[in-house]
Amino acid sequence: MPNGAQSLINGLVDGGVRACFANPGTSELHFVAALEEAPELRPVLCLFEGVATGAADGYGRMAGRPACTLLHLGPGLAGGLPNLHNARRAGTPLLNVVGDHALGHKRLDAPLESDIGALAGTVSAWTRRTYHATELADDVAQALAAATGPPGAIATLIVPADVSWSDAGSGAGPDAGPGARSEAAAPPASPAPAAPRRGLVSVDAVTGAADALRSGGGVALLIGGAAARGAGLVAAGRVAAATGAKLLCETFPARLERGAGRPVVERLAYLASGARRQLAGVRHLVLAGASSPVAFFAHPGQGGALVPEGCAVHTLAAGAEDVTAALEGFAEVVGPGACPVREEAGRPAPPSGELTAESAAAVLGALLPEGAIVVDEANTSGIWLPGATAGSPPHDWLTLTGGSMGQGLPLAVGAAVACPDRPVLALVGDGAAMYTPQALWTQAREGLDVTTVVFDNRSYAILGLELGAAGGAGARRLLDLSAPALDFVSLARGMGVPAERATTAQEFAASLKRGLAEPGPWLIDCVVPPLG
Amino acid sequence: MPNGAQSLINGLVDGGVRACFANPGTSELHFVAALEEAPELRPVLCLFEGVATGAADGYGRMAGRPACTLLHLGPGLAGGLPNLHNARRAGTPLLNVVGDHALGHKRLDAPLESDIGALAGTVSAWTRRTYHATELADDVAQALAAATGPPGAIATLIVPADVSWSDAGSGAGPDAGPGARSEAAAPPASPAPAAPRRGLVSVDAVTGAADALRSGGGVALLIGGAAARGAGLVAAGRVAAATGAKLLCETFPARLERGAGRPVVERLAYLASGARRQLAGVRHLVLAGASSPVAFFAHPGQGGALVPEGCAVHTLAAGAEDVTAALEGFAEVVGPGACPVREEAGRPAPPSGELTAESAAAVLGALLPEGAIVVDEANTSGIWLPGATAGSPPHDWLTLTGGSMGQGLPLAVGAAVACPDRPVLALVGDGAAMYTPQALWTQAREGLDVTTVVFDNRSYAILGLELGAAGGAGARRLLDLSAPALDFVSLARGMGVPAERATTAQEFAASLKRGLAEPGPWLIDCVVPPLG
Repeated sequence: MPNGAQSLINGLVDGGVRACFANPGTSELHFVAALEEAPELRPVLCLFEGVATGAADGYGRMAGRPACTLLHLGPGLAGGLPNLHNARRAGTPLLNVVGDHALGHKRLDAPLESDIGALAGTVSAWTRRTYHATELADDVAQALAAATGPPGAIATLIVPADVSWSDAGSGAGPDAGPGARSEAAAPPASPAPAAPRRGLVSVDAVTGAADALRSGGGVALLIGGAAARGAGLVAAGRVAAATGAKLLCETFPARLERGAGRPVVERLAYLASGARRQLAGVRHLVLAGASSPVAFFAHPGQGGALVPEGCAVHTLAAGAEDVTAALEGFAEVVGPGACPVREEAGRPAPPSGELTAESAAAVLGALLPEGAIVVDEANTSGIWLPGATAGSPPHDWLTLTGGSMGQGLPLAVGAAVACPDRPVLALVGDGAAMYTPQALWTQAREGLDVTTVVFDNRSYAILGLELGAAGGAGARRLLDLSAPALDFVSLARGMGVPAERATTAQEFAASLKRGLAEPGPWLIDCVVPPLG
Repeated sequence: MPNGAQSLINGLVDGGVRACFANPGTSELHFVAALEEAPELRPVLCLFEGVATGAADGYGRMAGRPACTLLHLGPGLAGGLPNLHNARRAGTPLLNVVGDHALGHKRLDAPLESDIGALAGTVSAWTRRTYHATELADDVAQALAAATGPPGAIATLIVPADVSWSDAGSGAGPDAGPGARSEAAAPPASPAPAAPRRGLVSVDAVTGAADALRSGGGVALLIGGAAARGAGLVAAGRVAAATGAKLLCETFPARLERGAGRPVVERLAYLASGARRQLAGVRHLVLAGASSPVAFFAHPGQGGALVPEGCAVHTLAAGAEDVTAALEGFAEVVGPGACPVREEAGRPAPPSGELTAESAAAVLGALLPEGAIVVDEANTSGIWLPGATAGSPPHDWLTLTGGSMGQGLPLAVGAAVACPDRPVLALVGDGAAMYTPQALWTQAREGLDVTTVVFDNRSYAILGLELGAAGGAGARRLLDLSAPALDFVSLARGMGVPAERATTAQEFAASLKRGLAEPGPWLIDCVVPPLG
């Protein structure tokens, strides 16, 4: 008879889970033991919970399978919340398994006791505590169904230690009370969840959107979510070509397919002033998998909505609806013969001389390998990246969906576990890198093919930019990271990742070539001046 | 007229706050600007929120003043929650200032929007969002009163960006609604909160406890909280001397005064089996500032309460009561002339040869400077430390009150800011150090006199111990940190902290002497085998 932990593992494997990003503690030890007996499920140890959750987000965005974490009680879940915030915004299918005190222990208010449910509720679409080992199989199946969606979401299953160590084949739970099951038989094996079906889109929505775009002049299609890749993206390109609509993508897509041969699409700018310029003159905006755009932050005297006054917003498909099918049907309606405008192949010339965010972007555009997965938390240093890489070979671009810093290095871990045959590039600011540097150790431990570029401008430059936008003085000691300067080469080597420093464009190109050629992880400390 | 951010700073300064551990973002930029105009308030930049909250905990335990953090929206608070969990268990007076979106921006569900109140509620005794700049002065005074207690607690004040940037002297708030104030005058300056008064203890409690301890044979006094230091600790020692009671301290005190000349007190063991041995035969247990002891974790077939069957538990003083006064009064009742048994001065001989957790403890006992503040997150490698340092010169010992890992390095930051004239030693396990390594950068930036010893046993040894205690096999890949080995010297240097590796007892002693002699931070990678 399996114990609860074994039953849980069986349920995960049955439900298609193949990797578990773990930072376990005492209450999860039965799960740790059971994991070693499940060869289908790869355990990936992370030294901090924020690495585990960020890695799960990256895995879930790329794998076509639900991601999974294993975390230790409330404090463990809490440490993982910042990157779960990003995963929630990304619509990533993700299950957290959170160990808890044995049920009889909870009323003792032991030191690690806290309100796990309240923490889980801030990011999860589905939260449950299992009270009997016999119910774990059912609960994990429901949790995975909730996570898989549509839309993809976070589910959190809280598993008390005694539920883990109790016999999952007997009807008696750990404290078999009035609600305990009486059947002695093992629960039926939970079937793998069926492939998720997205809801159909109404004819009215299609007709309304079509009328809007056909009205001509000042029309735009804003895509996001599943419409940023595959058939949905191609259909969006056809719609744009047929109607003359401007094709825009949400500012922070979970996963955008781009590069040579992919439909041309323009991402909305991060700064509200830039996004307003992109949307100026738009009278009809059709949304497909994206929300109506809003400013990231409010500023004095400015409203937060970005849609121009008088612009009508039409939702073609959102949330749980099948945005890909909707766009394909829509393309047949508005332009059956149209072909998307596609990016032409073309790379920047490799630059020489000074290393700046701009020349570094040109180096990346010149060398980006086909099929790369680019994790972008470069913030201000990344503003030249979209232009420099638009004609590079096809690749995926993963962004900071929720604005919670410290996503980049962990996301790369998960993407590399999900896609071991593809090169992963993590492009991160120095400030961003320091929230979750422990991800580098997991990259080394697992031999992941991740090349990390730290844009080392020795400041929280994005805050300087915001301060400037708000009319404040730029230089503030609390935004300065130069004293002492962080030595990312030393940090990376300390965690087992080979690393080099680049201070010219040529050095950067040479180091990037080495990193891309090597099979395991590699880090480049890319020393650049801050913007402006 | 001050804006909201300036009014908030004024309120903090008036309320006795002198340091702010900050990881700010865009919504806190007005606060960042205002901080630079307030020389009374030291801003301490932390590269990760868990460092800021852990540092605030260390500061609050040592400073005799409320601690303060500045965090960025829900994700920033979330990153700080694990160490806030520890601070809550420590009873540390601590105010979180959490920036939020401008009020009008919140309904737009911008990417960083989340339920800050729900997150705050899991650790805070007091939570409020301020809606008008004119109310900030009042709210910060109330928040500090709630944090200061007694008992010390966490208060969280959520400050929308427009409340920060609005005029705090005018009656019109940012969205002056029905509840807006009409007065145009500046609010009265909030007075510094009066010194907190703890509640009196009932005569019945004293009489009951006295009768219990006088009954003789199998009596014990368990102290914690404020009773672990100063006059309370001395009075506890007098009570023990007068009644023959065994004097015990809770397993994880926030701050224990110990060393030569201090009353002899024995800490309850972490493992339940050890604590049960310490409590065997106790028929009357009197609690002073401590809770009735429970096991840290439950294990199959074992109950969680540690008090022996048939033992009567008497509460002399707890929570908000004045435990120091209670113990002093109690000592007058049970033994007016009694003197505590005090630790004799004496240090271990400096060992030579193999470096182990035991020989490292002897080196620390031999060299511990007078007045040291020892931050102990050494876990399994720390079991010889209490014995080896009992007769060292007087010092304070700060422990992992809530069991949430990653406390040690940040706690040392805060203790060093609070007590710039005292040497701080952070004794941490390798696993523990990797949750919050960014604390080292803040130590370097602020020139803090912290000597860090990483007990580098290349494993989550405490989990191996727990697994062994639970009857499981010891070696599990998910508990192993050896591949790749972490190079803490390289990590520390990467963050500007000088560091050395020690592999023999003599090397460790020599490096520790250097670290204690240098004024700034220092780190020793103390390579030891895991226990057992």
